[in-house]
Amino acid sequence: MTGPPTPTPAGPPDRRPGGRTARVRAQVLDAVRAELAERGHEGLTMERVAARAGVHRTTVHRRWRDVGGLLADVIDAAGETDWQPPDTGSLRGDLTALNREIQQSLVVRPSLALALMAASFHSEQAARAQTRLWAVRYAQCEVLVGRAAARGELPPGRTDAHGLLMAATAPVHHHLVLLRADPDPLLPERAAAAAVLAAAAGAFTRGGGGGGGDARQ
Amino acid sequence: MTGPPTPTPAGPPDRRPGGRTARVRAQVLDAVRAELAERGHEGLTMERVAARAGVHRTTVHRRWRDVGGLLADVIDAAGETDWQPPDTGSLRGDLTALNREIQQSLVVRPSLALALMAASFHSEQAARAQTRLWAVRYAQCEVLVGRAAARGELPPGRTDAHGLLMAATAPVHHHLVLLRADPDPLLPERAAAAAVLAAAAGAFTRGGGGGGGDARQ
Repeated sequence: MTGPPTPTPAGPPDRRPGGRTARVRAQVLDAVRAELAERGHEGLTMERVAARAGVHRTTVHRRWRDVGGLLADVIDAAGETDWQPPDTGSLRGDLTALNREIQQSLVVRPSLALALMAASFHSEQAARAQTRLWAVRYAQCEVLVGRAAARGELPPGRTDAHGLLMAATAPVHHHLVLLRADPDPLLPERAAAAAVLAAAAGAFTRGGGGGGGDARQ
Repeated sequence: MTGPPTPTPAGPPDRRPGGRTARVRAQVLDAVRAELAERGHEGLTMERVAARAGVHRTTVHRRWRDVGGLLADVIDAAGETDWQPPDTGSLRGDLTALNREIQQSLVVRPSLALALMAASFHSEQAARAQTRLWAVRYAQCEVLVGRAAARGELPPGRTDAHGLLMAATAPVHHHLVLLRADPDPLLPERAAAAAVLAAAAGAFTRGGGGGGGDARQ
């Protein structure tokens, strides 16, 4: 589901890395990012993107179809980079570093991450791409939980890695994206520390430990 | 900052509860909610709202100025209801019930809560109103943390009520608003339970306990 939705109809496109297809995509996605930074997704048009990218309008229309297609491809491209989660030697350190990265990506102005989240409220195609990107990021971060388990930092039993990662990172997103509060320099570490304490107490351990979904209030 | 931005210029408006001013506001805000439900904030226009409310266009323009003013007033109105946080007898029960309310408000279709969050990405005025509404909700929920402290459910010392409430509720928002995942019937309780375990371990206790902002990774 990643990449442009339709190949060019006239013969197989040149898909060598650095070939024309890749080059055109890079130019167009760079133009989308620049337009998003300057005027948000509401100001995004196929025409402006084509002009900025120096690519013919019909090429942009053929490969990305509409603004939703452009947004989705920018989001998909974010999932294609070889990003690696932090590896600091402790679960708390890793989650703190991860939260700092998240905070940084949301407070930088203009924030592409924020623009894409905003856009995905208004384009079904962007929303689906955003959901795919979250899945990629959560999968990439599972290694961080696996390492913590191997170091003995988590209670025995199966850890709900998604639940732990969400508990650690959701407050930073919540604070900046939904509450729209000023950045809190202490929050990345506090949210990480709280999630680690909950994890140590068995909050994310399934089939054992406390706090699981089978407990009753 | 709540309420319509400008009073009618022709003489003092009738501000008795149930008076004409209140009645017009109720009609107009009902129309905004109905329009949001049907077509989202992107389809919202002063003209459609006026027509639906059966109120003259010039009245709507004079009192709310623009679509941002209408959105902000709907959000402000949500903060004026006499909502009370749950009181179940335990911190975990209260936070679970709170999360279930939040989940319900976000999964109901159409979701006014979701529509207003989406709108506040695109209207500065709506965004400021949304920030005010969050502040009201957090303040209303502090009593829940105070009761838990009085029952001895929290470690001695000052509890960061905002931090605890955010840890408990952010995952439900995160899951439904940002990840756009299908509702998870276990998440309200799991997120509440994790926050309670973290709180018991001192994650939100300042000036004592573990996990505070002074700790280093």
